[in-house]
Amino acid sequence: MKMNNYTITVVGLGLIGGSILRALKVNAPGVRLQAVSRDKQALQQAFNDNLVKLATSSLEEAIPSTDVLILCVPVLTVEEILRLSKPWLRSTTLVTDVCSVKGEVIKAAKRVFGTLPSGFIPGHPIAGSEKSGYAASIPELFSQRRVILTPTDTTSEEAISAVSAMWELTGAQVALMSADQHDQILGATSHLPHLLSYAMVDLFAKQAHHEEIFLYAAGGFRDFTRIAGSDPVMWRDIFLTNGEATIRLLDNYVEELHELKAAIQRADGDHLEATFRRAKAARDMFTEIFSRKSSDQ
Amino acid sequence: MKMNNYTITVVGLGLIGGSILRALKVNAPGVRLQAVSRDKQALQQAFNDNLVKLATSSLEEAIPSTDVLILCVPVLTVEEILRLSKPWLRSTTLVTDVCSVKGEVIKAAKRVFGTLPSGFIPGHPIAGSEKSGYAASIPELFSQRRVILTPTDTTSEEAISAVSAMWELTGAQVALMSADQHDQILGATSHLPHLLSYAMVDLFAKQAHHEEIFLYAAGGFRDFTRIAGSDPVMWRDIFLTNGEATIRLLDNYVEELHELKAAIQRADGDHLEATFRRAKAARDMFTEIFSRKSSDQ
Repeated sequence: MKMNNYTITVVGLGLIGGSILRALKVNAPGVRLQAVSRDKQALQQAFNDNLVKLATSSLEEAIPSTDVLILCVPVLTVEEILRLSKPWLRSTTLVTDVCSVKGEVIKAAKRVFGTLPSGFIPGHPIAGSEKSGYAASIPELFSQRRVILTPTDTTSEEAISAVSAMWELTGAQVALMSADQHDQILGATSHLPHLLSYAMVDLFAKQAHHEEIFLYAAGGFRDFTRIAGSDPVMWRDIFLTNGEATIRLLDNYVEELHELKAAIQRADGDHLEATFRRAKAARDMFTEIFSRKSSDQ
Repeated sequence: MKMNNYTITVVGLGLIGGSILRALKVNAPGVRLQAVSRDKQALQQAFNDNLVKLATSSLEEAIPSTDVLILCVPVLTVEEILRLSKPWLRSTTLVTDVCSVKGEVIKAAKRVFGTLPSGFIPGHPIAGSEKSGYAASIPELFSQRRVILTPTDTTSEEAISAVSAMWELTGAQVALMSADQHDQILGATSHLPHLLSYAMVDLFAKQAHHEEIFLYAAGGFRDFTRIAGSDPVMWRDIFLTNGEATIRLLDNYVEELHELKAAIQRADGDHLEATFRRAKAARDMFTEIFSRKSSDQ
C-alpha cells in the first residue's frame, strides 16, 4: 500500500501515541503526521521534537485532512472523541485505535455511528510499559511486537490492508482476530496479571511499615510487581470495560489458589511439586516463545 | 575478624552454594574452600573451576577440618545433613545455612542437637534467580544484597561476628532479626508472590492451546511470571515449612481480590482507581528503594 502523501493523525499523546509518531517519523518519511491532544505541554514537545506538522487541541482543525485517524486515549474516552470527530470525518477516512479492550470500542462506535463505517477497524498493539506519558515514548516500542486488529462485519479489505501496512511500518507484526477472542486472550495475558499485581502491592501499601518490608524484597518481587506501576486511569477503564472476562478468569484463579492452600494445609508436597513443575515447564516454554519473538522489550 | 586460614565448607552445590564459593574465591583468597555434594558432576565442575581444595560427597571427609559449615540445601534436607554432620563437628565449628524459612531450620537443629550449639546461626541471603543449579552460579550474586541472620538464644557473639564478616566478604549487607520476623517478612515479599505466580502460570498450563495465549503475551506477563520458573523442589519445601505465614497472607490477598471483584461488578471506577493509585505510589517507592540498594540484580 502506498502511504506516501498520507496524513496520519494521532489523538492522545501518551506513551503509545507518541511512540507511533516516532516510529512513523523514522520509517515513513513521506507521511504527514499530526497530533491532537488536550495536553498542551505534550503538543508543544511533539512539535519541538519535529515529530508533527500540526500539533493542536482542535479535532476540527486536524481531522478534515486526515487519511488515517488513530485514537490513543483511554477506552472510556473513545466514544467522546468519535462523537466530536464525526462531523469532520471524510467517508474515506480510516479510523482505528490502540485500546486494550476491543468489545467496548466497537460498542462505543456503534453508539456514535449506528452502522459502522467500512473504514473503521479497531486495533491493539501488544506493547507497552509500566511507564506512561509522552516523555516515555520511543520509536522502537512496536518493533517485533504483535498488533491485533479486530475487523468488524463492515470493515473493508482496503481498511484492513492500509492499517496493517501502517503498523508494519512501525516494525510490528499484525494478527487478525475477533474482538471477543482478543478480549479473552488479553484478559488472560494482561488484564488478570495487572489486577493480581495491583492487589499484591496494595495489600502491602495498606499496612504500616511497608517500607521495611520493601527493604527485604529482591528481584523476584520487583519483577512480579513491575506492572503495579502502570497508569491507574487506563487500567480502571480496562476493568470497567472487560470486567466480565476478567472476573471469569479471576474466579478460576481464586479456585486455583484454594487448591494450593488446601495442599499446603494437608502438607501435600506431591501436589505442590506437581503444580510447580507444570507451571515451570509452561513458563520455560513461554521464555522460549518470547525470546524467539523478540530479543527484548 | 580474621578469615585467613579458615576452612569454609559448603554443603550443596546449587546456585547459592556455587555463588558463595565463587564470591569467597575472589574476595577471600586466604580461605580454604571445600564442597560437599551428592551431585558428582557439580563436584567435578567446582574442582575443575579451581574453586575448592576439596570436592567430596563425604561429610566425614570434609567436616572435621571445617571452621564454618554452610548448608546450601533445600529446607527439608537440613535436618538430615545436620544429623549426618554432627559426629564430625568440632565444638568451635560455626554452622549456618541459606534456607528461605528460618523457623523450620531452628526446629530441625533442635531435633538434632537438643540444646542449640553457640556456633549455630541460621541465615538467608535475599538473592537468587529463577535459574537454579551450579551452572547458574556467579561470584557477584550477593553484591549489595541483604543477608538476614537470625541468631538463636544460644548463639554466641563470636558466631554472629564471624558469619557476618564472611557474608560481608561476598559483598552482602547483613541484617539481624528473629526467625519469626524473617519468616513473616519473606512470606510477604517472596513466598506469597511465588505462590501467586506459580498459580497464574499453572492456570494456563492446564488449558489446551496455551501456546497460543503465550503468543500474545508481552513484557508485563513475562516479568509477572518470571518467578514461576523457579526450582519446584525448593519451593515445595518452602510452602511445607512456612505454610502458616503464607496462608495467613494468602487469605488477606484473596480478601483483597474479592474487594476488587466486587468493585468491578458494581462498576465502581473510583474504588478501582484509588486502589491502583495507592499501589502505584507504593510500587514507585519500592523502585526508589530498590535502585538505591543496588544498581541491578
